[in-house]
Amino acid sequence: MFSLRIPLKRKSTQPLYEQLRVGLEEAITTGDLPAGTRLPAERDFARQHGLSRTTVTTAYRELEARGLVRSHVGRGTFVSSLPESAHAPFAWRGKISTATQRREAFAMRHLMTNPGRADLISFAAGFPAVECFPVEEFRHLNDYVLKHHASTITRLAAAEGQPQLRTMIGRRFNERAERILILSGATQGLDLIARCLLDPGDVVVMDRPGYVGAIQIFRAAGANLHGWDMRHGDMTELEDLILRYRPKFIYTNPTFQNPSGHTLGERERRELLGLAAQYRIPVVEDDPYGEGYLDEAPPNSLYRMDTNDLVIHLSTFAKVLAPGLRLGWITAAEYIVDQLALIKQRATLFTEGLGQLVMAEFIRSGSYDGHLAVIRKEHRIRRDALLKAMQEHLPPKSLVGAKPAGGIYFWGRLGGGLNSRELLEKAVAAGVAFATGDIFYPDDAGHEQLRICFASGTPQQIEEGIKRLARSFEATTPGRSRSKIPIV
Amino acid sequence: MFSLRIPLKRKSTQPLYEQLRVGLEEAITTGDLPAGTRLPAERDFARQHGLSRTTVTTAYRELEARGLVRSHVGRGTFVSSLPESAHAPFAWRGKISTATQRREAFAMRHLMTNPGRADLISFAAGFPAVECFPVEEFRHLNDYVLKHHASTITRLAAAEGQPQLRTMIGRRFNERAERILILSGATQGLDLIARCLLDPGDVVVMDRPGYVGAIQIFRAAGANLHGWDMRHGDMTELEDLILRYRPKFIYTNPTFQNPSGHTLGERERRELLGLAAQYRIPVVEDDPYGEGYLDEAPPNSLYRMDTNDLVIHLSTFAKVLAPGLRLGWITAAEYIVDQLALIKQRATLFTEGLGQLVMAEFIRSGSYDGHLAVIRKEHRIRRDALLKAMQEHLPPKSLVGAKPAGGIYFWGRLGGGLNSRELLEKAVAAGVAFATGDIFYPDDAGHEQLRICFASGTPQQIEEGIKRLARSFEATTPGRSRSKIPIV
Repeated sequence: MFSLRIPLKRKSTQPLYEQLRVGLEEAITTGDLPAGTRLPAERDFARQHGLSRTTVTTAYRELEARGLVRSHVGRGTFVSSLPESAHAPFAWRGKISTATQRREAFAMRHLMTNPGRADLISFAAGFPAVECFPVEEFRHLNDYVLKHHASTITRLAAAEGQPQLRTMIGRRFNERAERILILSGATQGLDLIARCLLDPGDVVVMDRPGYVGAIQIFRAAGANLHGWDMRHGDMTELEDLILRYRPKFIYTNPTFQNPSGHTLGERERRELLGLAAQYRIPVVEDDPYGEGYLDEAPPNSLYRMDTNDLVIHLSTFAKVLAPGLRLGWITAAEYIVDQLALIKQRATLFTEGLGQLVMAEFIRSGSYDGHLAVIRKEHRIRRDALLKAMQEHLPPKSLVGAKPAGGIYFWGRLGGGLNSRELLEKAVAAGVAFATGDIFYPDDAGHEQLRICFASGTPQQIEEGIKRLARSFEATTPGRSRSKIPIV
Repeated sequence: MFSLRIPLKRKSTQPLYEQLRVGLEEAITTGDLPAGTRLPAERDFARQHGLSRTTVTTAYRELEARGLVRSHVGRGTFVSSLPESAHAPFAWRGKISTATQRREAFAMRHLMTNPGRADLISFAAGFPAVECFPVEEFRHLNDYVLKHHASTITRLAAAEGQPQLRTMIGRRFNERAERILILSGATQGLDLIARCLLDPGDVVVMDRPGYVGAIQIFRAAGANLHGWDMRHGDMTELEDLILRYRPKFIYTNPTFQNPSGHTLGERERRELLGLAAQYRIPVVEDDPYGEGYLDEAPPNSLYRMDTNDLVIHLSTFAKVLAPGLRLGWITAAEYIVDQLALIKQRATLFTEGLGQLVMAEFIRSGSYDGHLAVIRKEHRIRRDALLKAMQEHLPPKSLVGAKPAGGIYFWGRLGGGLNSRELLEKAVAAGVAFATGDIFYPDDAGHEQLRICFASGTPQQIEEGIKRLARSFEATTPGRSRSKIPIV
């Protein structure tokens, strides 16, 4: 057990963490805290002593850097047997950079890591119907490229990407190859953009709710995020944000938005571009779902409508073909392509070539268009299966949201003041998972919302998942009448 | 033509760049500098006015941010027609982050970009004999993996890498899979390590000369670099550096070092590890060439010898199989693997899976070992061809260096005070390129040295390249007697 009184003077010129560190160090060297003692978890310690968590974390890390304590991930922080000798296990934690320490509790990892339960139906991660992936054609194309282009794909290559793929993507979107930068996935694009444009303290105005990966990447770059709800399309609000915060750029996913599914109308697009031009603010347009429409084709991209060359357009094959291919691209002014390519080269040299040449051939042959027709149809089937299952199995008004017209997500609001994190706990116990709404907010909000990816499971899995979700609703709201909830 | 007098007060409290900016802005708004005027190149302007280049660059960028001038890559900076209206082309350059502005003149890009001359024989870039790449076997393995594991390689995956490849690499080096992190190339590993461990202002003690990519990545992270010449193995010097600069880590490539080819002896390895343990300084061991020995196998890696868990080991298949595969790995304490995986996930989510599964199968089947025997033999042949060609064709003592015992580089010193940049100019004119020595120094040195990659060309190309180099020697030292230099 841990019991210790450390006198802390809040008005001292010595920072609190330093006072805490000195107090703990004394206790350790005098033996008041003997070797092996487990220090309280940082969060608990902070609460008990009315300190900020940062204060406690900093004090612990200082102690660790001095070899007096040692942290074990998932187990806690323990007093070392003595000031560590040169042969004690290495205290890595004391070596971590400030930027890495301040990073968030990575929500993305939570989304992507399979909790290791084979029976879990997960609506949490966002990926398409990979069952539609044309395996036979890819086998053929891989073999063809290896046979004829082995020299190209084994050698060093340019960070900008293989010319064939740049050309094919350029041709598809009526753009010059020089304005295309190939990425090892769209996430790399966001990371490169953050590195290229953001200094710590810069402001980004972004979708609220918005893409969780973007929130994490911009935050890690030290940016302050201010949300704009593109669903309202309120340009006065956007102009206020611009005037108030002078953002480095505006980040938006205007087409079948993640998570809301909303698409910004053509007039709002024009107005947004007008404001960006007026205040000379670049726009980063994240557009992974534009080709994944389910009913009608969406309006032109911001990039296409822009006449001032101020839009950086980002896309990927991950949401309409397969995320495992790790292929995305940026379309932008040549100056920006050049800058991003230099940063990319420093960070990873270049993108693996086999996959690029295969993809170029897949587009050239027309197979990509054929595939898009197939996957749109399948996603439509899955969307409809989700809506039907929700209507049949969930209590009325327990989860309300719009019918998605494209992309891969249903975004809903829970009825009756239910908290989606609490619901998730019950849901996982019942064998189903989803993404809680809070992770899509750059501020503390979204607790009554949730996101369901309808594209990644078969209609049967979707129905079974929704039945399980219904059971978890019941478990979360014990007062509700049983009769309304079908028991499976 | 540009002609203008701007009074600059060196003792003013107003920074020089600000004075310069104000002066230029006045000249532009009054019309003294009319629209379309090309400002002098930053370098020339700085020289003419006795200013630092940074001062001029900063002033130009401030003007650009205000829309008064516009830079065109490769053409220069021009006065805009008027304070830019909302519809003028977008001045991207004013939006670039401070970190990106301060980056180096990327030497790596210079190394890797083919100058577009098909007839150029380049010894500059570092890659192995890709002619040995087992195309047929890879065709077979790719087809096998796509046929049987399409589901795995199309879906989302863990940032740590595919379990099969982690396991196979672990088995090969007698290490648990949990301590292996798969990388999209070793460069990604250096970038992740820099992000994980370095704060701006931190010091890294690194090989001098040392790997140019590491110099660029650590610098971009804001680190200050201090060189240690591992060829001397002087531990007193290393300890002095540690005491003086308290580095965040020591970076070294102790086996067939890039660029010097030197291998740190076993005793020095033990001493280095001892110092690292004593001062609790992590060691980043870059080891791309360990399996690429040409004569005898090298000593154990630092990682293998270390008993304190303070070494992060970095390797890749790029230098013994093919750089185009973009596959490398880190071996380290689980805590570090975990931290790096989180950063990797934020930066690129995960590494493409097909290549990983193919590589795992390639190792498992024993084919990788077979390939290593083949490529070692081929590299031996190419090394010997280089040494023979140099002896036959170069003027005596014009280029002196040790015979490489492994890796892919010959590192030489030019005789007679020749500068390698000057030589390179003549060499490229003669149709051959190499890497100049200065890019491998974290400080201003190495001007009389150069690096030749002997692995990437056939023996015939090597001989022809050296003949051309001999001609460029002649062109660079006109006083030298012609008779000693064979004319081809």
